[in-house]
Amino acid sequence: MVVKVYGPDYANPKRVLVCLIEKGVEFETVPIDIFKDENRSPEFLSLQPFGSVPVIQDGDYTLFESRAIARYYAQKYKHQGTDLLGKTIEETGLVEQWLEVEAQCYSPPITDLIYKIVLDPIRGLTPDPKLIKESEDKLCKVLDIYEERLSKSKYLAGDFFSLADLSHLSLTQYLMGKMGKEYLIRDRKHVSAWWDDISSRPSWKKVLDQYSL
Amino acid sequence: MVVKVYGPDYANPKRVLVCLIEKGVEFETVPIDIFKDENRSPEFLSLQPFGSVPVIQDGDYTLFESRAIARYYAQKYKHQGTDLLGKTIEETGLVEQWLEVEAQCYSPPITDLIYKIVLDPIRGLTPDPKLIKESEDKLCKVLDIYEERLSKSKYLAGDFFSLADLSHLSLTQYLMGKMGKEYLIRDRKHVSAWWDDISSRPSWKKVLDQYSL
Repeated sequence: MVVKVYGPDYANPKRVLVCLIEKGVEFETVPIDIFKDENRSPEFLSLQPFGSVPVIQDGDYTLFESRAIARYYAQKYKHQGTDLLGKTIEETGLVEQWLEVEAQCYSPPITDLIYKIVLDPIRGLTPDPKLIKESEDKLCKVLDIYEERLSKSKYLAGDFFSLADLSHLSLTQYLMGKMGKEYLIRDRKHVSAWWDDISSRPSWKKVLDQYSL
Repeated sequence: MVVKVYGPDYANPKRVLVCLIEKGVEFETVPIDIFKDENRSPEFLSLQPFGSVPVIQDGDYTLFESRAIARYYAQKYKHQGTDLLGKTIEETGLVEQWLEVEAQCYSPPITDLIYKIVLDPIRGLTPDPKLIKESEDKLCKVLDIYEERLSKSKYLAGDFFSLADLSHLSLTQYLMGKMGKEYLIRDRKHVSAWWDDISSRPSWKKVLDQYSL
């Protein structure tokens, strides 16, 4: 049974794609164009009532929320492909801790920056430099904590690549490309080395090669 | 070994306390007064670099982020106390899906309302009715989806009480008390019945009896 992933060409679905590739799970993608409101169609809303991507269908099992989907496959195929959850329950606890930090502390200011720098101009809005600066300052505080953490362990949850690191790929890629904010990563030695490591994984390169960001 | 929970008198630590009680895990609490900046002390920041509560210490194991801590104990004591993760990996996937919905869709507008209605006036700021209305409208859209979901299953992830339901207790309690927004829950038949069910659990009553909100 091939897993169907709805909406590949956005940051959150890519969190799922890279996870499926790391786990060696076959999938196919179903394009959902948010700019054409395809995520508001009755068919799509019957799968995902909030109208967000991604959603997966795996046989008759439907699941949404990218981090929940990633956890499901990381657990279901624990012993296939890359182990993304750590060897002990304590390591898994730390993976979950940093996955929550990604969701609660790291993603909100980057998402704000993406809206202000990339999406608002497409919609004809003029970005407010003061608001951009505020989001960037928030993100810098988080990255300073990451720098300290990554000076002590190679990856966020310890010396193993995990779902916590993987979950940072798609939004951080925006900083490094379209947004011209590469210096936020490059100005921090350990964060920069960590980014080079995780973004050079074949799984992520495959996602970037095959799907637009 | 008794688990130490830092900062009990706030909403996020209560997510951990109610989980520990459901799992029958002994704990003691260490008060952290955020209004006195105790969360910014070097000692506290060495445990939790972001300066947020809760943090737990369990022997020499330290963990932060309330949902990560709750997952850790739900998994560590899977067969002790209430099973909060579901019986199958597919049920656990749905628990994780609704736990993410709580974190990403439900909590942000309630937290905004708590700041605007409860905390800003303490700080001498005048609440802006327009901004309150915006947050309330966002929350209503989420609650409408909950109403539909809870018309089909007794709890969010299925017909079993889980970490997803538990995780809603502390913030929803604000709506029902201090904020005068009880109607948001009471106007929705299935959400209202769900709230009566989950908030009448002895674990939650014990948390409310022993710790201020």
